[in-house]
Amino acid sequence: MGKRIVIALGGNALGNNLPEQMKAVKITAGAIVNLIEDGNEVVICHGNGPQVGMIQNAMTELVRSDPEKYIPCPLSVCVAMSQGYIGYDLQNALREEMLNRGIDKGAATVLTQVEVDPDDPAFQTPTKPIGSFMTEEEARRLERERDYHVVEDAGRGWRRVVASPEPKGIVEIDTIRSLVESDHIVVACGGGGIPVFKTEGNHLKGAAAVIDKDFAAAVLAKQLDADLLVILTAVEKVAIRFGKPDQQWLDRLTPETARQYIADGEFAPGSMLPKVQAALSFAESRPGRQALITLLEKARDGIAGKTGTLVCG
Amino acid sequence: MGKRIVIALGGNALGNNLPEQMKAVKITAGAIVNLIEDGNEVVICHGNGPQVGMIQNAMTELVRSDPEKYIPCPLSVCVAMSQGYIGYDLQNALREEMLNRGIDKGAATVLTQVEVDPDDPAFQTPTKPIGSFMTEEEARRLERERDYHVVEDAGRGWRRVVASPEPKGIVEIDTIRSLVESDHIVVACGGGGIPVFKTEGNHLKGAAAVIDKDFAAAVLAKQLDADLLVILTAVEKVAIRFGKPDQQWLDRLTPETARQYIADGEFAPGSMLPKVQAALSFAESRPGRQALITLLEKARDGIAGKTGTLVCG
Repeated sequence: MGKRIVIALGGNALGNNLPEQMKAVKITAGAIVNLIEDGNEVVICHGNGPQVGMIQNAMTELVRSDPEKYIPCPLSVCVAMSQGYIGYDLQNALREEMLNRGIDKGAATVLTQVEVDPDDPAFQTPTKPIGSFMTEEEARRLERERDYHVVEDAGRGWRRVVASPEPKGIVEIDTIRSLVESDHIVVACGGGGIPVFKTEGNHLKGAAAVIDKDFAAAVLAKQLDADLLVILTAVEKVAIRFGKPDQQWLDRLTPETARQYIADGEFAPGSMLPKVQAALSFAESRPGRQALITLLEKARDGIAGKTGTLVCG
Repeated sequence: MGKRIVIALGGNALGNNLPEQMKAVKITAGAIVNLIEDGNEVVICHGNGPQVGMIQNAMTELVRSDPEKYIPCPLSVCVAMSQGYIGYDLQNALREEMLNRGIDKGAATVLTQVEVDPDDPAFQTPTKPIGSFMTEEEARRLERERDYHVVEDAGRGWRRVVASPEPKGIVEIDTIRSLVESDHIVVACGGGGIPVFKTEGNHLKGAAAVIDKDFAAAVLAKQLDADLLVILTAVEKVAIRFGKPDQQWLDRLTPETARQYIADGEFAPGSMLPKVQAALSFAESRPGRQALITLLEKARDGIAGKTGTLVCG
C-alpha cells in the first residue's frame, strides 16, 4: 500500500535565513507528515543554496578579521556544516509534527557524502557562483593562493565559481537504508551531499563543488530502490512554452516526450531543466519507477494522482 | 566477548583548527579501529570547544560585516554546525581506517539533540566563556538586545558566558541504537549534543548552553546499556595530589573513594573533576558497568586491564 518515496525539497521549503527557516520547516514538516500518515516511507533530500552561501560568507569574514589565524574553509566543510544547520531544524519540525499526530517514528539526519568523478567535465568549466562578492584584488589573491576559479559578475564585483559535477553514488547509503528499514524518517544528502572523490587507497577527498540536490535525490532514490521520486518546486506542474500566451501544463511526461522537450529547449537551465532531467533519470532506471514534480502543498494530491506532472517510463 | 563501549573523545583528539583536525582524526581513528578490531561495538562522543568557538566567531564576524542583513546565530545552531564539521572528518577517517583493515562496517554521524532542564540551576549562573573577546559597548548591546550574559575577563576584554546544564536524555537515542545494532560505528552527541528543552506541546527549543561532553557520554552510555564508558584525556591515569611531589596515580577507583577524593578537592573543576564525576555516574548506574579514564593511545591497553584508571561500582 505505502510507497518508498524520496523527496527533493526546493529552497522555498527552507527560507532564506534562520527565522524564515524556522517558519518554513513547520509548513514543510506538515506536508511531509501527511505522506507518512498515508503509510509511505519517506526520505528527504534538501537544497542548501542560501544556507551554504551564508556559512561560506561567515567563514570568509572570519579570515578577513584575522588572516594570520584563520584559513579559508573548504566548500565541502561548509556543506557539512549546512547539513547540521538545516538538518537540526528539519528533523526537529518532523519529530514535533509526528508526535502531535501520534506517529511514533524517529526523525534523523545522516551526514552524507556523495561521490563525484574527479574527471567529470564540470570541473573544467566551473559555473556555479558561491559566496559573497569580492574586490578584484581579493579574487585574484584567492585564485593565486588557493586555486579558486573566480569570475567578474556583470559589473557587480567578483565571485568564486565552483563546479556542479554529476553525483555517482551515496557513501552512507547503507546507513540511510538501515534507518529507513528501522522506521525512521531520514534527512540525507543535504545540499546535494558533501562532494567527495576517491584518491589513493580508500581516502575520500572533499571536492570544491556543489551537487545539484535533484540529481542527488535521483541517485538516492535509485540506490534505495524507491518507488517514487517527488521533486518539490515553485510550480504545481511542468509547462511547455512556459510564461508564453500558449503555455501548456503537463500532467504526464513519457521519457520520449521529455527528451524531445529538452532537445527543443522547453525547460530553463538551472531551473526546470535539471528537475526534468533528474525525474527522467529515475523514472527510466527500472520499470515501475515514477517521478512527480509539483508544489510542496500539492504533494499529497500529486501522489494520489490528482495533480502535478508525473514522469513515468 | 566484545563489549559495547561509549568513548568520550577529548579536544586533543581533534586538534584546534581544520589542518590539525584532519591529522588528529587519523590518529584517533587508528586508536578507535583497534577497539573495533578487538570485536567491540563503539559509539563516539566528542568535544567541540575550539570548533564551536570558531563557528561562533565566524557568525559574529558575519553580523559585524552587515548588521542590517544578518542576526546573531543561536548557540544551539552553532553546535549543530560543529557536529557537521567534526562528524564529516571523523566518520571519514573511521571509514578509511576500517576499509584499510578489511572491516566492513558503516561509519555514521547522527545529528544529536540532548535534553536539558530549563530549571537547571546552571542557567542562573552561566560560567562557560564562549566566542571571541568584545568591547564593553558590543557586550552591553548584546546583553540588552539579545539577553546574553557577558563578563569582563581579567582585563582581556568582554566575553559571552553560557550555562553548562546537566544532560537529561538523548532525543535521538533510538536512531543511535538502531545504527549500533545494524553494525555501525556511530558518532553522536558531538560537542555534548545540541542543548534543547521541552516547551509547550512537543516542541523542543534550542538552549543558550553547552553540555559537558563527558556527562553527555555518560548519559548516552546508560541509555545504550553500554558495558564500558571510556573517557579519553591528556593523562594516562587519574592522580591524587596531582602535580605535587607526592602525586599518586590511581589504577582503580571505587565509588566511595572517588566521592571522598572529590570532597577533598583532589580533582580540578573544568578538568579532571567532570571526568571523574561522569565516570562515577555511569559506573554506579547499574552493577557490572565500568568506566575507564586514560590516554587515546592507551585505550586498547586500558580496556585489556593493563593501564588507565578504572572506576567500578
